[in-house]
Amino acid sequence: MPRTLKLAAAQMGPVHLTSTRTETMDRLLTLLRQASTLGAQLVLFPETALTTFFPRHLITSPDELSNYFDSASTLLTSPNTAPLFNLAKELNIDISIGFAEWDESAAAGSVAGANVKGYNTSVYYSARKGEIVAKYRKVHLPGTVEPFSNPDAVNQLEKRYFAPGNLGFQAFRAPDLVKSVLKKGGHGVEAKEDVKGKGDPILGMMICNDRRWVEGWRCYGLQGVELVLCGYNTAGFAPDLWGTRKPMTPEEAETDAVFHHKLCMQGNSYMNSCFSVSAAKAGMEDGKYDLIGGSCITSPEGHVLAEAKTKGDEIVFAEIDLEDCRQGMEKTFDFGRHRRIEQYGLITTQTGVVEPELLG
Amino acid sequence: MPRTLKLAAAQMGPVHLTSTRTETMDRLLTLLRQASTLGAQLVLFPETALTTFFPRHLITSPDELSNYFDSASTLLTSPNTAPLFNLAKELNIDISIGFAEWDESAAAGSVAGANVKGYNTSVYYSARKGEIVAKYRKVHLPGTVEPFSNPDAVNQLEKRYFAPGNLGFQAFRAPDLVKSVLKKGGHGVEAKEDVKGKGDPILGMMICNDRRWVEGWRCYGLQGVELVLCGYNTAGFAPDLWGTRKPMTPEEAETDAVFHHKLCMQGNSYMNSCFSVSAAKAGMEDGKYDLIGGSCITSPEGHVLAEAKTKGDEIVFAEIDLEDCRQGMEKTFDFGRHRRIEQYGLITTQTGVVEPELLG
Repeated sequence: MPRTLKLAAAQMGPVHLTSTRTETMDRLLTLLRQASTLGAQLVLFPETALTTFFPRHLITSPDELSNYFDSASTLLTSPNTAPLFNLAKELNIDISIGFAEWDESAAAGSVAGANVKGYNTSVYYSARKGEIVAKYRKVHLPGTVEPFSNPDAVNQLEKRYFAPGNLGFQAFRAPDLVKSVLKKGGHGVEAKEDVKGKGDPILGMMICNDRRWVEGWRCYGLQGVELVLCGYNTAGFAPDLWGTRKPMTPEEAETDAVFHHKLCMQGNSYMNSCFSVSAAKAGMEDGKYDLIGGSCITSPEGHVLAEAKTKGDEIVFAEIDLEDCRQGMEKTFDFGRHRRIEQYGLITTQTGVVEPELLG
Repeated sequence: MPRTLKLAAAQMGPVHLTSTRTETMDRLLTLLRQASTLGAQLVLFPETALTTFFPRHLITSPDELSNYFDSASTLLTSPNTAPLFNLAKELNIDISIGFAEWDESAAAGSVAGANVKGYNTSVYYSARKGEIVAKYRKVHLPGTVEPFSNPDAVNQLEKRYFAPGNLGFQAFRAPDLVKSVLKKGGHGVEAKEDVKGKGDPILGMMICNDRRWVEGWRCYGLQGVELVLCGYNTAGFAPDLWGTRKPMTPEEAETDAVFHHKLCMQGNSYMNSCFSVSAAKAGMEDGKYDLIGGSCITSPEGHVLAEAKTKGDEIVFAEIDLEDCRQGMEKTFDFGRHRRIEQYGLITTQTGVVEPELLG
């Protein structure tokens, strides 16, 4: 029995330091209405969808910084954010969206930077419940705490403003998003009786750089995830501060960044037998920072099913059947039969690289 | 300072049940000589390169089964295997080759099948040392212990004949394979003094199905691996015993299998900042089992640098610079700065899938 889902990524063009919250909200609402005309049941918006990607900037004023953050507890009531959730409810569309989560207690976490104000967060809103049913805080924060001294550098100060996510990779069920129930079976075993509730899809959220880290994908895979959602802001080109990169034109660098993005989404979807959807904030932000597009939907076989054609506001849409996850889950990637956890110890006991001893 | 390595995959066409060891050895020697004319310093041969891929067959006679196995301790002296290592020594080429390793004590391991005779193994032979300097035993054994009842099935009885590898993913140094030394540095830090011996490349071996499992790659990545070697025998098409696969022609299935192979090699190379080389046994074995080609060399940026054009005996060659690993290792994938092992617990504590609770 198919478990079809009409799925959309709402890619956004640039949002600038000078963009007002009202302007940006109007664009989000327009994208949601466009997705609705296609029949979308679930729409993913990008990382930090409400503002420019401010971690590029060294912002020292707490007041200024607070403009880029929102509190998770007031998302459904604040005039800055409520209109999007209200429209999602009205259109009966589940949404997931990324934002900078204000939580000063995060400063007490493992990062010492005095400007840590919270987390790089995404939430999942169930239109049927009228509630936020899941929250994810970005685990893999890229970049540095301190800005580069090189004036040509593109800063990435996520480690300065955010604490690493402390909620883990917690898969969750999207209530009544898909109505039909799942027939279990496989391995030639006769199909078991239908189980009420099995049809609620198992989802997982990640944010931007997380998609490059196999650990998050695998933690979700071990919870039977059927669809991974990932919003992002990814620079197409940055000066080579490490001096280790082959020379590239900005165009070549952008092509390579899109290739890497898709390689991660495709490869990890295949190796965890799940669909994925990714939504970019794209284009030239603040006249200087060129972000890649490439928002896409990938299948459990690792194929790209739909892909953005622009670097602006654009809906990427596909109708998927979550049952397509079963082929991988029950055969090649049947974790219970094939994984050998006694050999994986390094992954959870050692953070960085320890090279084999030098030879004499 | 570049650390260049002339690297080859020796793809093999089919080896049949009726092929003699002498015939197969002659082909291996020819491939090694061809690689030598290109200047190769390291040649990778496929999984079970010495025989047909016998785990497709239910073989009940211990005597018959023993024909497909070799003892690791006699590789350099047995007339069945010594000629290859002797020629490698003569040509000053390091080689890595897969074979079924006879070790009856493996039956005492965690697999109950009475026919377990050993391991699916590969070794690394250093021509400069004249010794086997590393051994790997395949961890992720695909397939089943018992054959399928369906006569159309393509059996994959690796779990019957082999115990899961018990040597872990142990990276190792290839003695004097690359002469120059590595200048450490990066992150804008001034380059440290050259360190004697740093230039010996860090390698890791995996076998066939292992390449689909991110855990092995990451264990190697955590040891600073610069090159992963992977021999394989991969069916292009098999009947859909699970009833979960979309209908495909054999041609479509083969295209998809090659796509998945390359996706794993490219994605995992990128996400671990290492090169990889893979060598297939390809073509129609025993008139019935059609194996994919697709032997390739991939870069730390996830690009395919060289790729087989045939499904027969063929050398795939590239000259690589191991210093190209540094870009990823020191920036995007600087594990020590970015990994968050406190969030990865499921990977080593839970083998199979545990789904989130059903919603009421």
